Amino acid sequence: MFLAKVYITLKPTVNDPQGLTIRGALHNLGFTTVQEVRAGKFLEIKIAGEDQEKARVDVENMCKKLLANTVIENFRFDLESIKQG
Amino acid sequence: MFLAKVYITLKPTVNDPQGLTIRGALHNLGFTTVQEVRAGKFLEIKIAGEDQEKARVDVENMCKKLLANTVIENFRFDLESIKQG
Repeated sequence: MFLAKVYITLKPTVNDPQGLTIRGALHNLGFTTVQEVRAGKFLEIKIAGEDQEKARVDVENMCKKLLANTVIENFRFDLESIKQG
Repeated sequence: MFLAKVYITLKPTVNDPQGLTIRGALHNLGFTTVQEVRAGKFLEIKIAGEDQEKARVDVENMCKKLLANTVIENFRFDLESIKQG
């Protein structure tokens, strides 16, 4: 059993209206030192099996096919072995 | 200048319909070894200043006041010093 932690972020050149909105709200709350906010996604995926290399390839393909829009987003992930349960 | 990487996740006991939907879509794509998907948020926040302890306290307060709904979500963050730019 493996746990993949997937981080999906907008590419640096892509506009991030959600991040701008969050920055505005933080400024309104008095956090005026905030320069920039970039919003992204974080996914935890549990995968059955014993073959770490297969799991790694699977997560890579999941990101490319479904989880990330690779035109505008980057992704990276960590894979760790966990106990069943 | 500091970069805070903030990870916001649903508490383990909270239902995650978005995660269930993603799991279903991954199964439909043939990734049948996927046991569970939990969806969360990932934010990168750039903060001006030189005082790391103040930045840490600020990020903690941003999470509690705006970024996370602490009734149903957990948050954690890393803070690193970065060069101006």
